[in-house]
Amino acid sequence: MNLRLADRMENAINPFISDILRATARKDLISFGGGLPNPASFPVREISEAAQKVLSEDGAGALQYSTAEGYPPLRELIAARYQKRFGITVDPADILMTTGSQQGLDLLAKLFLNKGDDLLIERPGYLGAIQAFNIYQPNYHAVPLRKDGADTDVLEEILKSCSPKLFYAVPNFQNPSGLTYSEQNRKRVAELMKKSGTIFVEDDPYGELRFAGSEMPCMKSFLGEDVIMLGTFSKIISPAIRLGWVCAKPEIMKYLVAAKQAADIHSDYFAERVVCQYLQDNDLDAHIEKIRTMYQERKNCMVEMARRYFPQDVSFTDPEGGMFMWVTLPEGMSAVELNKIAAEKNVAFVPGDPFYVGERNVNTFRMSYTNSDANVIEKGIRCLGDAMREMTASR
Amino acid sequence: MNLRLADRMENAINPFISDILRATARKDLISFGGGLPNPASFPVREISEAAQKVLSEDGAGALQYSTAEGYPPLRELIAARYQKRFGITVDPADILMTTGSQQGLDLLAKLFLNKGDDLLIERPGYLGAIQAFNIYQPNYHAVPLRKDGADTDVLEEILKSCSPKLFYAVPNFQNPSGLTYSEQNRKRVAELMKKSGTIFVEDDPYGELRFAGSEMPCMKSFLGEDVIMLGTFSKIISPAIRLGWVCAKPEIMKYLVAAKQAADIHSDYFAERVVCQYLQDNDLDAHIEKIRTMYQERKNCMVEMARRYFPQDVSFTDPEGGMFMWVTLPEGMSAVELNKIAAEKNVAFVPGDPFYVGERNVNTFRMSYTNSDANVIEKGIRCLGDAMREMTASR
Repeated sequence: MNLRLADRMENAINPFISDILRATARKDLISFGGGLPNPASFPVREISEAAQKVLSEDGAGALQYSTAEGYPPLRELIAARYQKRFGITVDPADILMTTGSQQGLDLLAKLFLNKGDDLLIERPGYLGAIQAFNIYQPNYHAVPLRKDGADTDVLEEILKSCSPKLFYAVPNFQNPSGLTYSEQNRKRVAELMKKSGTIFVEDDPYGELRFAGSEMPCMKSFLGEDVIMLGTFSKIISPAIRLGWVCAKPEIMKYLVAAKQAADIHSDYFAERVVCQYLQDNDLDAHIEKIRTMYQERKNCMVEMARRYFPQDVSFTDPEGGMFMWVTLPEGMSAVELNKIAAEKNVAFVPGDPFYVGERNVNTFRMSYTNSDANVIEKGIRCLGDAMREMTASR
Repeated sequence: MNLRLADRMENAINPFISDILRATARKDLISFGGGLPNPASFPVREISEAAQKVLSEDGAGALQYSTAEGYPPLRELIAARYQKRFGITVDPADILMTTGSQQGLDLLAKLFLNKGDDLLIERPGYLGAIQAFNIYQPNYHAVPLRKDGADTDVLEEILKSCSPKLFYAVPNFQNPSGLTYSEQNRKRVAELMKKSGTIFVEDDPYGELRFAGSEMPCMKSFLGEDVIMLGTFSKIISPAIRLGWVCAKPEIMKYLVAAKQAADIHSDYFAERVVCQYLQDNDLDAHIEKIRTMYQERKNCMVEMARRYFPQDVSFTDPEGGMFMWVTLPEGMSAVELNKIAAEKNVAFVPGDPFYVGERNVNTFRMSYTNSDANVIEKGIRCLGDAMREMTASR
């Protein structure tokens, strides 16, 4: 039988993400590839206790169908955390639980994007977002990232010729660059958003993982209800349980809830109950502090090793939090090529290509430092440095 | 800010489903509305044990990111169950775990449906499927249900003028009608599908809940790889955990996996591990047998009470399994109107309207018998009979 697919599937297949996830299964590899939290940070015992408590106290309730919006007490805790972190008031009714924050991306694209609609995305941008958006066939406008955040000159120029529906961005410890928008940059982006009528989609999976510098105000504090916020428990509790959320004003939430019901009725309600119980019975701040310390040590080690082993003409970011370092090779060098040489040395990273819209054979790549201890980082970075020199020598 | 939604959201809001789910929270109501499994059937202790075991044996693994396809041993168990139930061989690689089988509907619509594409659906049809499909704006063709299954005369007629991409159907204990396709009907539908080039989407959430009659061959046994099967643990283990699956040939699976990654990366992997552990350590057949007995008693009671209390000119189905009875009022009587009168008597059901495409004020409605014991069923059906008579009297 002839396969008659919808037009939207034309560019839907992106082998990079599945390759990354599959690479995590190869035990022989030093992998700086996947954006995986360090499993030593998972609160295994606490989650087990929470699961037992939920099931013993309300098993019948916790295993039953629920509503699309998600467990109200959990959404209250999320709202309270926004208050505590940023001093902003969020109505728990404006929070929709999603199956990871990835689902938030799919739902927002579904809600807003007709084929050909203008969409702003960072350059480089989160590959999972590009993957989600591609299916809705938008007209991408790339906003380059600089050291202090989005390139507002380019952004301003783009906004002169069109009014994109959304600007999807990760202002804290961005994936893949590890960069963070400065306060001044946030203000300038917010000004431009206000004039343009573009909704700013503020994704913040790593914001809690700051180990240096000081907390930045969220974009919502400048833009109010014209921001949609995405959040997740994946990087601070566990990614397996797939619990994220979207925070949006009621006018948008109404449609988000309809799209959510159509997409999967509701997210795993048992997981929502277990995570809520976990949060009620444990000190999340203390838990996050442990993750921060763990990642800071690893980041420091990776930066130190990169300084030691990478050639002088290779640059890299020095993130203040999150999980990623971004490496820039000299002009004309292909990260995909380097990846092949590195694979022979059993070292993996993610070439920059899937983080760009329509650019290939770029000279940048992403490395995660979260999952490797100092010895492994040293060994891996040394091998990578060797690979870079081999590549330069063979040109 | 002006809300600039995508065109596809135009008909996305369907208040019926959220109303049904919300109605489950009203404790004062006799609700035959929601399609909720009876919580007394949930294996609470066993799930708790499975969760503890998974976390104590491999907590770090079970809380980490996984792959889009889902936990391989769980997919092997699902494949083995197809072999046992129907004698068909399914490759575990052809199974994709989804966030409830509802997500399977969204993914399939996303994969196949351009706006205006022809799509076959039962009349009445599952409202969750209509909700999922609406967002992709298909051109629906309704295939009426008869006592023995799909009306193949109408189906044949439709297929003369178009070649729908999909026929979405629930051949066992259909939602909402409770009807089951006979073996002869299945064969005839399969013949028509083969000629038309239409993919049959065989949704089977209730098939395991047969309490009378004998197991029917699945459509896949007639149509082979040109069937896409949907399944779920919602009705036999727990709906909260949102674990369903899609079974499709590799050519389709490749795109399903891409769409799944874009939609939520993967389903709750912890839940997959827990359910797999549950299945390994417990006798699912014995568990299902308990549910069957429980539902059979309730169905028998509801049929008996409907015979006793409903007016003579009201007809209803007598299902051999599943969760639903379908009631047909005399011509011209509106189930929505009846619902209002019944609500005053604190009884709820689902008016037929959301189960039809483009028909309103229909004279049919759905009742679920799974969640009410004999006393409640008798009281509720008596009230409904009274409401029917009041309505007739006031015309």
